[in-house]
Amino acid sequence: MRAVDIIIKKRDGLALSKAEIEFFVNGYTRGDIPDYQASAWAMAVLLQGMDAEETTNLTLAMAATGDTLDLSSVVDIAVDKHSSGGVGDKTSIAVVPMVRACGLPVGKMSGRGLGFSGGTLDKLESIPGFRTNLTKDEFLAQLKSLGMVLTGQSVDLAPADGKLYALRDVTGTVPSIPLIASSIMSKKIAAGAQAIVLDVKTGNGAFMETLEDARRLATLMVSIGELSGRNVVALLSDMNQPLGVEVGNALEMKEAILTLRGEGPEDFVAHCLEVASEMLVLGKRAGSKAEARAMAEDALANGGGLEYLRKLIEAQGGDVSYIDHPEKLPVAPLRVNVEAPRAGYVAEVHARTVGETAVGLGAGRMKKGDPIDPAVGISVLVKVGQAVEAGRPIFVIHARKAEDVEPARQALLEAVRIGDEPVEPLPLFYGLIE
Amino acid sequence: MRAVDIIIKKRDGLALSKAEIEFFVNGYTRGDIPDYQASAWAMAVLLQGMDAEETTNLTLAMAATGDTLDLSSVVDIAVDKHSSGGVGDKTSIAVVPMVRACGLPVGKMSGRGLGFSGGTLDKLESIPGFRTNLTKDEFLAQLKSLGMVLTGQSVDLAPADGKLYALRDVTGTVPSIPLIASSIMSKKIAAGAQAIVLDVKTGNGAFMETLEDARRLATLMVSIGELSGRNVVALLSDMNQPLGVEVGNALEMKEAILTLRGEGPEDFVAHCLEVASEMLVLGKRAGSKAEARAMAEDALANGGGLEYLRKLIEAQGGDVSYIDHPEKLPVAPLRVNVEAPRAGYVAEVHARTVGETAVGLGAGRMKKGDPIDPAVGISVLVKVGQAVEAGRPIFVIHARKAEDVEPARQALLEAVRIGDEPVEPLPLFYGLIE
Repeated sequence: MRAVDIIIKKRDGLALSKAEIEFFVNGYTRGDIPDYQASAWAMAVLLQGMDAEETTNLTLAMAATGDTLDLSSVVDIAVDKHSSGGVGDKTSIAVVPMVRACGLPVGKMSGRGLGFSGGTLDKLESIPGFRTNLTKDEFLAQLKSLGMVLTGQSVDLAPADGKLYALRDVTGTVPSIPLIASSIMSKKIAAGAQAIVLDVKTGNGAFMETLEDARRLATLMVSIGELSGRNVVALLSDMNQPLGVEVGNALEMKEAILTLRGEGPEDFVAHCLEVASEMLVLGKRAGSKAEARAMAEDALANGGGLEYLRKLIEAQGGDVSYIDHPEKLPVAPLRVNVEAPRAGYVAEVHARTVGETAVGLGAGRMKKGDPIDPAVGISVLVKVGQAVEAGRPIFVIHARKAEDVEPARQALLEAVRIGDEPVEPLPLFYGLIE
Repeated sequence: MRAVDIIIKKRDGLALSKAEIEFFVNGYTRGDIPDYQASAWAMAVLLQGMDAEETTNLTLAMAATGDTLDLSSVVDIAVDKHSSGGVGDKTSIAVVPMVRACGLPVGKMSGRGLGFSGGTLDKLESIPGFRTNLTKDEFLAQLKSLGMVLTGQSVDLAPADGKLYALRDVTGTVPSIPLIASSIMSKKIAAGAQAIVLDVKTGNGAFMETLEDARRLATLMVSIGELSGRNVVALLSDMNQPLGVEVGNALEMKEAILTLRGEGPEDFVAHCLEVASEMLVLGKRAGSKAEARAMAEDALANGGGLEYLRKLIEAQGGDVSYIDHPEKLPVAPLRVNVEAPRAGYVAEVHARTVGETAVGLGAGRMKKGDPIDPAVGISVLVKVGQAVEAGRPIFVIHARKAEDVEPARQALLEAVRIGDEPVEPLPLFYGLIE
C-alpha cells in the first residue's frame, strides 16, 4: 500500500477502505507518512468528503494511536458529554455535579479556551488549588471513589488527532466536517466513552456558523456512534448570543455555582437541564426524558448538584470555601456599565464579538499557551427579544486596565442591535439528533 | 500575507491575485513555505482549478525563480517547440535540423524519458560522444555560430517548478491541467522562448488520455502565451498508436536520420512537416502555412535537414559517421518477429502498452536515474486501419536478453487488436489551437 495511492483515491472522490485509513493514520502517526502527504490528503478529504463509514474508521484508527481508557471496571456505563465550543458555555461545571447527584458517575476530560471560545479548565482554575492535571491513575481512582472527575487530558489521547489537527491548522483544512467529527469522537472514544451527549452549537459564536453545517456535523457524529457501537445523541443548540449572563473565567465559575444554588439565569438553567436529562437517559438512570428532567430539576432544587460540585473541588485540591462564598473569586478592578444607546427591542447580541471582546480584555487566548486573566470578562445583561429602555445597562465590562474599557465598549455597542420592531427570542435548541 | 490564507482562498474556489501567487511561489522556492502547505495548495488547485490569468501568473512567477535566458542578442525570434510526450516521438531530432535548414535558428532544451514516454536526450545519446550537457555559455555560443542547439537543461530553469513537480509526484497532484500547463510554459519562458509550437498529444500513450483534456491543456497554454506576450500555437496530435515505426533509443535515432534522408515512415514525416511548418510561420521564415510547408518539404527532399543534423552532431562532439552510416548505431543481439495471429483489419495498436513493453526490454526507465539500453526496443510494422494477413510480421522485438522476448511478445499481442470489419485510420491531428 502506498500513501500516494490513498491520496489519489480520495482526490478522485472514492471511498477509502478501513485498511487504507488505518495504513494512513498509523503511518502518519509513526512519521512514515510525511506532513506533505497528510496535508494533501486532508485537502482532498475537505473538498471530496467522507461518508459515515469512512469517518468512523478514521475515528477508530485515530483513537487507537495512543492511550485508551477502559472505564468498565469503574462505572457501569461510561457517559460523556462534549460541547463544540462557544461563548459563555460553562455547562460542564454545572451539569457534571448535577448528574452525579442523580447517581450517574461521569469522568470527563475537558479543554482550554482558544480564540473567541472559552474552555472549562480555565474556568475551574479560577478556584485556587484546583488541579486539572490528574494522572490516569488518579483519574480512575477518583472516578471509582467519588464517581466524578473533571480534568485535562493528561494521558495521550488520540495523538494522531493532535498531530493532524496542528497540520490542518496551518494548511487550511480545519473546516472539514468529517475531520472535525473524527477529531472530537476519537478523543471521546479513546477516553472510554460508551455513551455521549453532544452539544453541537450553531451561530456566529460557534465553529459551525450555519444550522445546516451543525446538523451535518451532529448527524455524522451520531452515525459514528452507531457504527462504532456507542450510544450518541446530539443537541443542536443556539450560539448566536452568549449562553447565560457571564463571559470570562471567574465570572462563569461563579455563574455555575449560582446555577447549582438555583439562582442561575433562565437560558443557562434550561440548557443544563436539557443536557443533564439526555445524559441521565443515556446512562440509564432514568427510563424517560421526563423522568430524567424531574431528577435533574431536583438536583438543582435540593442542593444535590451544589454538594457534588463542592466534593469535586475538594477531591481535586481546590479551596471549597469559594463554593460557599463565590464572592471570593477573583474580581476585576474596573467594572463599567455599557448602557443601551436607545430604547427598543434587542435584535442581536453578537456572540462572537462578545467572545472576542472578552479575549481582548484578557479572558482568553489568541494562541495556545497565552496567559489568561481569570477576573476579567463581560456580563451580558440582555437577550434577543427583550425590550430595553435607553440608558439601561446592557453589559458590564470587567477590566484590569483602564485603557481596555473604551475599545471594549465600542465593540460591545457594535455587537448589540436594538430596533423598533418586536423580535422573537432566539430558541435555545434547534433539535435533537439521535 | 500568510500562506495559509492563500491556501484557504484557493480551497474556497476563489481566484488568487498576482501578488498572492508570487508570494507563494517565491516563499516555497526559498523554503519559507514548507512542503506541507505547498501540497495542500496543489490539491486545492487540482480540485478547484485556476483560470488563465492565475495560471499565467503562476507560470511567470515560476519562470522567474531561476536562471533565464535572453536570446534576443543571438536570434531575431526565439522559436521553441515542446511535445507533451509519447511513444515513438523523435520529432525534435528531425524537425530542429529541418527548420534550421530553412533559415530558422532553434536553441532547444529537451528532456529524458520516464515511464512509457521516451525522451529526446536519450535518443541523441545513442550517438557516441554526443554531449547533452552544454553550459549556458556553450549553448549561447553554439546558437550564435550554428543557429541550432539540442541539449539538456544545464542551467537551473524554473527551480520552483522542479521542486513543486517532485512534491506533486508524491502527493497525487500531478494531473492538474493548470499545474501541468504552468510547469511546461515556465521552463519554455525561462529558456527564452518568444514563440512556441506545442505538440499536445492525446490518447492512451499520452499524459492527456482524452481529447477533451488535451484540448483544455492546449487552450490554456495558448492563453498563457497570449497573456504573457508570447506567440503560442498548439497542435493536438494522436497518441493512441506509436508515432512512426520505431520505439527505442537507437532505433528512433536511426528513424530520424532516415526521415531526413527522405526515407521516413509516412505518419512521422507528415507529423514533422506539420510541426516544422508551424515553427517556420511563427519564426516569420514563411508568410503562410503553405509556403512553410513547401520549405519544410524541400529541406527533406534536398538533404538540407540531414546536413544540419550532421552539423548539430558534430558541434556537440558526436561521431558524425553514425549519420552517414546509421547501421553503426547499437543493435540488439536478438531480433524477433511477432506475427499477426489472424487476418483482418488492425483496429488498435495500444501505444501505452507498446511503450511499457519497450521499457520492460530496457529502453526506458521506471524512475529517474535508471540506466537504459540504447539498442533495445520495438519496431511497429502496422498502423490502425491497415489490412493484414495472418502470420505476417506486425512487430519486431529488439531484445538484449532471451528471457525478455516471450513476455514482450505476449504484451504486444495484447496491444494489437485485429478485427473483421474495415477500420478507419486514426487521424494524425485533431486540430490546431492558436
